[in-house]
Amino acid sequence: MAGEGWNTAVTSIAPNQIRVRGYRIDELMGTVPFGSAVYLILRGELPEPAVGRVVEAMLVASIDHGVTPPSTLSVRNAASTGAPLNACLAAGALAVNRHHGGAVEDCMRLLARGAALLAGGASAAQAATQLVGDEKAAGRRLPGWGHRVHSDDPRSRRLLELARDAGVAGAHVAVAEAIVGELAKGGKQLPLNVDGAIAALLADLGFAPELANGFFILARTAGWMAHVAEELAREKPMRRIDQGAASYDGAAPRNLP
Amino acid sequence: MAGEGWNTAVTSIAPNQIRVRGYRIDELMGTVPFGSAVYLILRGELPEPAVGRVVEAMLVASIDHGVTPPSTLSVRNAASTGAPLNACLAAGALAVNRHHGGAVEDCMRLLARGAALLAGGASAAQAATQLVGDEKAAGRRLPGWGHRVHSDDPRSRRLLELARDAGVAGAHVAVAEAIVGELAKGGKQLPLNVDGAIAALLADLGFAPELANGFFILARTAGWMAHVAEELAREKPMRRIDQGAASYDGAAPRNLP
Amino acid sequence: MAGEGWNTAVTSIAPNQIRVRGYRIDELMGTVPFGSAVYLILRGELPEPAVGRVVEAMLVASIDHGVTPPSTLSVRNAASTGAPLNACLAAGALAVNRHHGGAVEDCMRLLARGAALLAGGASAAQAATQLVGDEKAAGRRLPGWGHRVHSDDPRSRRLLELARDAGVAGAHVAVAEAIVGELAKGGKQLPLNVDGAIAALLADLGFAPELANGFFILARTAGWMAHVAEELAREKPMRRIDQGAASYDGAAPRNLP
Amino acid sequence: MAGEGWNTAVTSIAPNQIRVRGYRIDELMGTVPFGSAVYLILRGELPEPAVGRVVEAMLVASIDHGVTPPSTLSVRNAASTGAPLNACLAAGALAVNRHHGGAVEDCMRLLARGAALLAGGASAAQAATQLVGDEKAAGRRLPGWGHRVHSDDPRSRRLLELARDAGVAGAHVAVAEAIVGELAKGGKQLPLNVDGAIAALLADLGFAPELANGFFILARTAGWMAHVAEELAREKPMRRIDQGAASYDGAAPRNLP
Repeated sequence: MAGEGWNTAVTSIAPNQIRVRGYRIDELMGTVPFGSAVYLILRGELPEPAVGRVVEAMLVASIDHGVTPPSTLSVRNAASTGAPLNACLAAGALAVNRHHGGAVEDCMRLLARGAALLAGGASAAQAATQLVGDEKAAGRRLPGWGHRVHSDDPRSRRLLELARDAGVAGAHVAVAEAIVGELAKGGKQLPLNVDGAIAALLADLGFAPELANGFFILARTAGWMAHVAEELAREKPMRRIDQGAASYDGAAPRNLP
Repeated sequence: MAGEGWNTAVTSIAPNQIRVRGYRIDELMGTVPFGSAVYLILRGELPEPAVGRVVEAMLVASIDHGVTPPSTLSVRNAASTGAPLNACLAAGALAVNRHHGGAVEDCMRLLARGAALLAGGASAAQAATQLVGDEKAAGRRLPGWGHRVHSDDPRSRRLLELARDAGVAGAHVAVAEAIVGELAKGGKQLPLNVDGAIAALLADLGFAPELANGFFILARTAGWMAHVAEELAREKPMRRIDQGAASYDGAAPRNLP
Repeated sequence: MAGEGWNTAVTSIAPNQIRVRGYRIDELMGTVPFGSAVYLILRGELPEPAVGRVVEAMLVASIDHGVTPPSTLSVRNAASTGAPLNACLAAGALAVNRHHGGAVEDCMRLLARGAALLAGGASAAQAATQLVGDEKAAGRRLPGWGHRVHSDDPRSRRLLELARDAGVAGAHVAVAEAIVGELAKGGKQLPLNVDGAIAALLADLGFAPELANGFFILARTAGWMAHVAEELAREKPMRRIDQGAASYDGAAPRNLP
Repeated sequence: MAGEGWNTAVTSIAPNQIRVRGYRIDELMGTVPFGSAVYLILRGELPEPAVGRVVEAMLVASIDHGVTPPSTLSVRNAASTGAPLNACLAAGALAVNRHHGGAVEDCMRLLARGAALLAGGASAAQAATQLVGDEKAAGRRLPGWGHRVHSDDPRSRRLLELARDAGVAGAHVAVAEAIVGELAKGGKQLPLNVDGAIAALLADLGFAPELANGFFILARTAGWMAHVAEELAREKPMRRIDQGAASYDGAAPRNLP
């Protein structure tokens, strides 16, 4: 028996013609940046160029964070046993969950509640007070503020700056920043971390929270590729990997030309 | 006992300072396109802007090819059983192997043999004759020429054009194109497919063949995200997915503004 | 810096001595069936032999269900692209979720509510009436009753029989069977399916619902191995797999000697 | 268009009747041990009961080896990030490769060369001399002899004993043991490890080397389930897991009743 008919609106394929959301892929190539193509395929429309640049900046921000993230351990550990590259990358994706990378999704849901309060007439400060109070009362940790290494995450600061320049910072960014102020009132210096900044931007750009960890996986795949290549080039197979025992011996600090 | 000490040259992490191959990540964000950041993290140096654009074009070329590729079936099938997004993406990566996406790696190894012949004084045509003869004698299929749907793949044509404009087309591209001519002599119209064009470009850019399927996975992750979102939005769980029964009902053909 | 100290109670390793939950592994080998070893490692104590046989029967019941389950499609599809065996098996595991295999976990949680009612003095019939009513009111589908192919699943019938012989059928089996009666009152012939029977047994044996899909994956791994071997032996790479187009051409029906 | 027709010989499904290789699954349940069902589904015929017991003993031998194997690190690391059980198990399978678990497959191929020498008239000792010489000349490490922890692996000893009792030890076991003698002549005490013993038995039972790491994954899935359960019960999320820092605090050594 033949399977049931069904439809797709992502990409149409005909001999010598591939169209993503209606646009010829060969026309997109070399014309729009990858970040805009990502936006297009997920949202159905091309973004303003400034928005495409914000998406690219989010991808660059997520490209790597050294050898300590658990997903990178998973990737290197798989490589060390002899796994092919695609299996190493899959192992990395499987370690991106609620407690690693997942804060973006949780934060998007929190900020959506804040944006709803703004839509109902509250100020960002009022929304922040209510959200922080609600989360505290429920015994939940705020997902997107504070970092175990960075007290002032350079990625968040830069992302918000780019978003403002591009004119895409909206209600979610406003609430995210107001929460920093609200936390400071309680004596806690918990700045927005990169998860929180990406959450605020993805939400202001209109992405669904369910997609959040996909952006992280997409961007980090490049970093994971570099870690697999390095593991194979520099280490013996089947080593016991202690993340805390790693030192950096790469390029010295340098500035863009 | 503590683990053995080891080194990494990819990314250095210090409080409030993240440097990828020596560059501050917040300086890279919004300044270099994602394709250039991918090049940087894999190669250790920033590419010329024109090269970064070629990398971005390769990523755009690989972003999606509709619902028939086996990796997309894997992704949609996992989504249909209720898998979270990261598991769907991992399932996709696990279906990128020798027979799907893997032609890039095989083609890079073939073209490397051709480039060695050129370095030894052969012309591109002579190298092509020898390679085609050797592969035929060994009973191997040429990986990177011909496509089950496209007789003239628009992605390959565009990639080579961009590579030429950027001045990065070298020995590998020359051999790849000479092989098309050699095959035509035998009466076979087997143009360079997208795998072959990407293989030629990655090789001319100096990437290792081992990384090839990572580029595909990285770019296609965006397409897979779109397919997961569509599967969840439009289909019932646990459906039997027949790829041959799908129709396109998305945006009508349109041109870039 | 050395990592933080931590403890494990599963297996102790010393030179020439491996002990699982305190027992020498070489003493277990050839002495206890695999099902008892599985019980031991998960629960910390060896089961009565009769209980070990019920665990083995559950594993045998789950070993395969032909080519239509989505996890088997995932496995064969990965094999068709050239994935190594372990990646095929991982792809299978990633397709075992809420809507495929996951009914066991959901059913265990439902039956636990029923067992609590029994502990509070209700009869199995009363508990069934309440559970069916509650689920109907909440608009939820009962997980563990009914099957798209089997109106009287031979695996469920046999499992309950073995459980009764082994003296392990308790409150959860009682509620599971009472629900069949309750559904029949409403005119629905929805017998306990294999997911429901396994759920009732795992619950009566005291396993946590969180482990349920692991049993399925463990047992089905054997079936998936058979499907990978068959795919590689009989099919061409990169074929488009239509599950509905498969016919059985194996051994004719036969009885145990 | 409907997909192409194809055949399967593994399991036939009809309403209320499931047959594995021709046998009713409900007749197999409770009658044959899981190890015999595994043999049946992979080989097409039920094994002698003694052979089924050897298969079960191999599964018990592989069920766990504490917290240091890289696959177990992968599993616990995924669990620590919040991955669901099936994703943890998939991550484990992805870390079973050439350098971990893979020695079984390599050893089977080596022993097959030895068995061919025996079939050609050589003695086991002669075959061992030749194989060890060939591998040494090729600069390859012998896969299946020696262990970083066990100088006399209790699992190998027991497996060979069970195989002899069951009458299944054949040419591959003979070569495997002769290689121990050959290595001793060179002054190296490298006893057969568990990978080597399983390789010899699987080969004497007639299994294909390609299936080897599937047996390991199947059995170890039970151990991985125990490690996931323990990780969730005893540890905080997102901890940095140092395998070398673990201590055993489980059941004291004990004997079977």
